Amino acid sequence: MTTQAQLIGLDWGTSSLRAYLFDADGKVVASRQQAWGVRQLPEGGFAAAFEAITAEWPACVAVAAGMVGSRQGWREVPYAALPADAAGIARGMLRVDDCASHELWIAPGLQRRQPADVMRGEETQIIGALARQPLQQLNMRFVLPGTHSKWARVVDGRITDFDTVMTGEIYALLIKHSILGAGLPAESTPSFAHDAFVRGLLAARDSGGEGIFSRLFSTRALMLAGELAPAQAPDFLSGLLIGEEFRIARLRDDGSFSPLCLIGEATLCQRYALAAQHFHYAPPAVVDDAAAQGLWHLASAAGLLAKARLHSYFGVTT
Amino acid sequence: MTTQAQLIGLDWGTSSLRAYLFDADGKVVASRQQAWGVRQLPEGGFAAAFEAITAEWPACVAVAAGMVGSRQGWREVPYAALPADAAGIARGMLRVDDCASHELWIAPGLQRRQPADVMRGEETQIIGALARQPLQQLNMRFVLPGTHSKWARVVDGRITDFDTVMTGEIYALLIKHSILGAGLPAESTPSFAHDAFVRGLLAARDSGGEGIFSRLFSTRALMLAGELAPAQAPDFLSGLLIGEEFRIARLRDDGSFSPLCLIGEATLCQRYALAAQHFHYAPPAVVDDAAAQGLWHLASAAGLLAKARLHSYFGVTT
Repeated sequence: MTTQAQLIGLDWGTSSLRAYLFDADGKVVASRQQAWGVRQLPEGGFAAAFEAITAEWPACVAVAAGMVGSRQGWREVPYAALPADAAGIARGMLRVDDCASHELWIAPGLQRRQPADVMRGEETQIIGALARQPLQQLNMRFVLPGTHSKWARVVDGRITDFDTVMTGEIYALLIKHSILGAGLPAESTPSFAHDAFVRGLLAARDSGGEGIFSRLFSTRALMLAGELAPAQAPDFLSGLLIGEEFRIARLRDDGSFSPLCLIGEATLCQRYALAAQHFHYAPPAVVDDAAAQGLWHLASAAGLLAKARLHSYFGVTT
Repeated sequence: MTTQAQLIGLDWGTSSLRAYLFDADGKVVASRQQAWGVRQLPEGGFAAAFEAITAEWPACVAVAAGMVGSRQGWREVPYAALPADAAGIARGMLRVDDCASHELWIAPGLQRRQPADVMRGEETQIIGALARQPLQQLNMRFVLPGTHSKWARVVDGRITDFDTVMTGEIYALLIKHSILGAGLPAESTPSFAHDAFVRGLLAARDSGGEGIFSRLFSTRALMLAGELAPAQAPDFLSGLLIGEEFRIARLRDDGSFSPLCLIGEATLCQRYALAAQHFHYAPPAVVDDAAAQGLWHLASAAGLLAKARLHSYFGVTT
């Protein structure tokens, strides 16, 4: 490694840990991934995981985001308030005392007071994705699909509001444990059941103010009636649940459609892009992985990059 | 046993089997219960379960309702269509061929075509509860809370529409398997957390057309914010889910409030009665167990009681 290395970034969630090494221009020059999420740490806990994943990397400043800052994390970092931008989030960072090898900071998550909601890690991805947007697009809806989907509103480049929707977790629970998963093929559908998915979307969209809570069971009833093949049931249910996210989002849009930006895994984002189309949104931008860029921008906003440069100047690297 | 016995009724669901012996006036003179639901039959299957639970009872005509008539049951009985009354349901009964000891009939469930929905067993409880209503109250909403809550509309004494809401199953899945159940006391709340429950109800009621799908996570967020004690979280979630049932029901009422009648277990019905109050319904009637009475009325509508009387007359009893 050379003295070019400026920053280590850690995207440290519930089930995985990703580490990035940045050069002076903010370019990722190395990255590593382990299954060492906050709930499945290796022996030696947080410190051991950190040492192992940064082994042989320079001892430059490090910034972490995600569940590592939660009550079950390495150090609890109080949530930052809304509205939030990179500077506001950076001000909430706390330093980890018991990291011997590096100066390590953890970024706060965000909290909405009323109704209560929280995020940890997604705010960093949004900051990263925002950095890629042209200036005229700083009013957007960011959607981060997943176990707990996050829908965030950005006005003038600041996160003003967000919601957590437990879409992925509820989908998995219903397929794995509920009556809706009974009698399905053991393997998930090999190919995406497009028509069944869209049928679910439209059932949600056209449910009026009722929503899908009283329609979930139709996944079963349609199968019993011979109107839905068992192999298509999972994608119908997926359409119902993702459709419900969009139904709620549309209610809040009040006629004004902010452009959507999807951040997440490509296959999942394709489903959300299809849903966006059926809910009359313009085709959304899709950002594959914005965490690294977000960590860099938070470090920059925190003034940590200058410090990193100073360290490098005096050759304080391993 | 005397020749007074006229009918055996079987309420045969997924997880339990109840048997009733009726006298000539439709009074239950004996009843038995086993955990021999359709999914947990004893050795020897349906026939063995039937023989054991009716042991030493007369060989009079028997009528069964519930999942015993499903594809996984003793004999599949096609669903009856809406609107349905006792006569219509009785017409759909099928006789079980391989019940050697008794003339055994299974009642059909009900199916709604659009949107697809089904019930098996609850129709019989509704028929039983209807038999207790004064004539002027044959326009009602029947609510059967449970794993799969059923909301049925009755107009002029006929079931015209119904919905299945997976409230109980989703509640159990979320508490047992999701992030919402993490960090809760190992034992469920010893006493009912009234205020938390009502708070959940109101969150659903006041969610406008959005509903609770994007509010489920607030159960967790409120705990993290210190605004909800872990011991109260289950009842808050219960309030959210039951409140969502009522929110949807209110949307369909179009200003006209049919009286509600609750059929089910007393403690659960108390929650629904409390919800009804917060959703401005008149205090609902509560019927504890209507299955036996429903079985009697279906047998009567099917003309099976005369046959039973004939059997008894000739002394065809064991």
